[in-house]
Amino acid sequence: MRPGYGRGPTPYGDAVTAQVIVLNGGSSCGKSGIARCLQAVLPRPWLAIGVDMLVEAMPAAMRASDDGIEFAADGGVLVGPEFRALELAWMAGVAAMVRAGARVIVDDVFLGGAASQDRWRQALVGLDVLWVGVRCAAEVVAGREIARGDRVGGMAASQADVVHDGVAYDMEVDTTRAESLACAREIAARVVGTEG
Amino acid sequence: MRPGYGRGPTPYGDAVTAQVIVLNGGSSCGKSGIARCLQAVLPRPWLAIGVDMLVEAMPAAMRASDDGIEFAADGGVLVGPEFRALELAWMAGVAAMVRAGARVIVDDVFLGGAASQDRWRQALVGLDVLWVGVRCAAEVVAGREIARGDRVGGMAASQADVVHDGVAYDMEVDTTRAESLACAREIAARVVGTEG
Amino acid sequence: MRPGYGRGPTPYGDAVTAQVIVLNGGSSCGKSGIARCLQAVLPRPWLAIGVDMLVEAMPAAMRASDDGIEFAADGGVLVGPEFRALELAWMAGVAAMVRAGARVIVDDVFLGGAASQDRWRQALVGLDVLWVGVRCAAEVVAGREIARGDRVGGMAASQADVVHDGVAYDMEVDTTRAESLACAREIAARVVGTEG
Amino acid sequence: MRPGYGRGPTPYGDAVTAQVIVLNGGSSCGKSGIARCLQAVLPRPWLAIGVDMLVEAMPAAMRASDDGIEFAADGGVLVGPEFRALELAWMAGVAAMVRAGARVIVDDVFLGGAASQDRWRQALVGLDVLWVGVRCAAEVVAGREIARGDRVGGMAASQADVVHDGVAYDMEVDTTRAESLACAREIAARVVGTEG
Repeated sequence: MRPGYGRGPTPYGDAVTAQVIVLNGGSSCGKSGIARCLQAVLPRPWLAIGVDMLVEAMPAAMRASDDGIEFAADGGVLVGPEFRALELAWMAGVAAMVRAGARVIVDDVFLGGAASQDRWRQALVGLDVLWVGVRCAAEVVAGREIARGDRVGGMAASQADVVHDGVAYDMEVDTTRAESLACAREIAARVVGTEG
Repeated sequence: MRPGYGRGPTPYGDAVTAQVIVLNGGSSCGKSGIARCLQAVLPRPWLAIGVDMLVEAMPAAMRASDDGIEFAADGGVLVGPEFRALELAWMAGVAAMVRAGARVIVDDVFLGGAASQDRWRQALVGLDVLWVGVRCAAEVVAGREIARGDRVGGMAASQADVVHDGVAYDMEVDTTRAESLACAREIAARVVGTEG
Repeated sequence: MRPGYGRGPTPYGDAVTAQVIVLNGGSSCGKSGIARCLQAVLPRPWLAIGVDMLVEAMPAAMRASDDGIEFAADGGVLVGPEFRALELAWMAGVAAMVRAGARVIVDDVFLGGAASQDRWRQALVGLDVLWVGVRCAAEVVAGREIARGDRVGGMAASQADVVHDGVAYDMEVDTTRAESLACAREIAARVVGTEG
Repeated sequence: MRPGYGRGPTPYGDAVTAQVIVLNGGSSCGKSGIARCLQAVLPRPWLAIGVDMLVEAMPAAMRASDDGIEFAADGGVLVGPEFRALELAWMAGVAAMVRAGARVIVDDVFLGGAASQDRWRQALVGLDVLWVGVRCAAEVVAGREIARGDRVGGMAASQADVVHDGVAYDMEVDTTRAESLACAREIAARVVGTEG
């Protein structure tokens, strides 16, 4: 994380070093569970904002059109130019929330790997970000997808590796054998440890 | 709406006059249905961002604490200082999404009436906003709350009037007898009619 | 309703004449809202059991296969032999709940019109059933589908008429202009009015 | 399982030995995930019917009254006489579905321990049942409850042991370290291994 940040007071009291925690991982790898556990274990309130929220905010028509997002039969996700434009505005908005004093946990799926991270990096420029990769073995994630019962089959497996392509992390967690809460505690230790 | 806005190009093409549509009304009055219909009838993509999304983004603990939001037995909603601080940051973020080129439909419940509108006004300063009041007769809204089956009984009735207290609108719609789609078309006519 | 029923005591107290209320209507016509309102206005507890619950109970694979249920691009629904077999068992089960003393509101979409009613009639033989048709003008239901935002576009319109084909009702309600609660009160008046 | 069952044909083809699989375990222990995985790995279609479905079918008023079900502040669940009566009718209905040819996975929380099992035993008399206990270490289940974010805190922990009190099982699985899919495969091996 960037040195020299975090000396001024915020609406919430003393400054902390990490203002944003970005969780990146494939579908069903456990990001949103980790985000909720982070909210429970971190001493101050953090907002949890996921890409699911952005998709929900989009017009229904964009989920099934060339301009929007499309869920392919093999579980892949295709994103069109209109989606991309709204996504950039969304990222700018999330960054502004942080600049206005909110702590934010971002939960995303970097379908474009390093290019996705670059987009977030530009949006979050000047802010202290903890980049966290959330891994899970492909066969485990495929099983969890079946257990959840609410996703297109194969989405998890198709995303398991590609979302980490060329992405740089401050730390990584692996939910293959670790519980969400244990992963959250690992992450929180990093955040709180850098407070000061 | 503010004159003189909307001459420059945006990432989405020609400028339009309204960049933000704010829907304000009590629980179960039909705001989110109108928002989805607006997304369907407006020619360009708009994001629909509601206060429900903010509540969902908050830590679970804040929904049942003095610092957060609390659903009283009579359906009233109490909001604490931590909630308020995160809400202000959220508003700043939504405004930044608009400044970055997204059109946004905000769906909110002005529990503080005019004071709530003032907070949005400050966040959205310099942007073209269409303020829309969404009304519904108290006894009708109470019935819809029962039909939805997913809310604390009495929330709708307790909010029906107070949320409009001292709030200034560009237009109002009433869902007592009109369908969401018809209300959305009324609103869209105002937005599109001012394009150019 | 069948004469001569309803003399013996049930686990809930005095006998009533209607043991089952079957609501039939197309998708998004307001059946489940009416069912929840009926639960609120009827003096004794009724279970509300809808076809959505059956679909949810089915294996996920059956929702996208030749043997199960399929949502066509135009909003139509196709049902395979395996679905049909499980549906018959489900109907037998619902009937058994009623014979064991529960009052049940069934909320269904008679995709087969009169043939669907025959299947329910056979399952419910010997029980007192109030058959209720739930109508809604096609253009209104199409708008509500957009407002709900959670269905395949066009499902409502494609089902609006076909589900009533050849079906015999004790009464009909129309949600085009009436609220769910008002419809529920009309129905409840019939049920309570025939108590003895 | 009972010897002598399963010689006649069913609507689905050859007879199998287990007609019902009952999964019993505390809240958030992973029962419904195992049920969905069982549906995916078992060769024929099985219905998955959980106690959540019964609660959803009940009148909303019964979830907050002396006659119905109540979620205590410590996560405990209290059940009144009206709930009990509807539950017995529900059990009779599920049994009738099986007698009509459906295979059913029941997912329940035996709040009454052995007494709950007795009620199911009486409903399912004459049917071949595989009784499966689903265990999970209390601290793990408490963490998963936080990760899910949708339950009253402490429900999982308060139920972890009491639901197994005096209950007799054909087999047990433990989700503390095993995935839902792995547990489902263990169970399926028992079911399929006894086919014939």
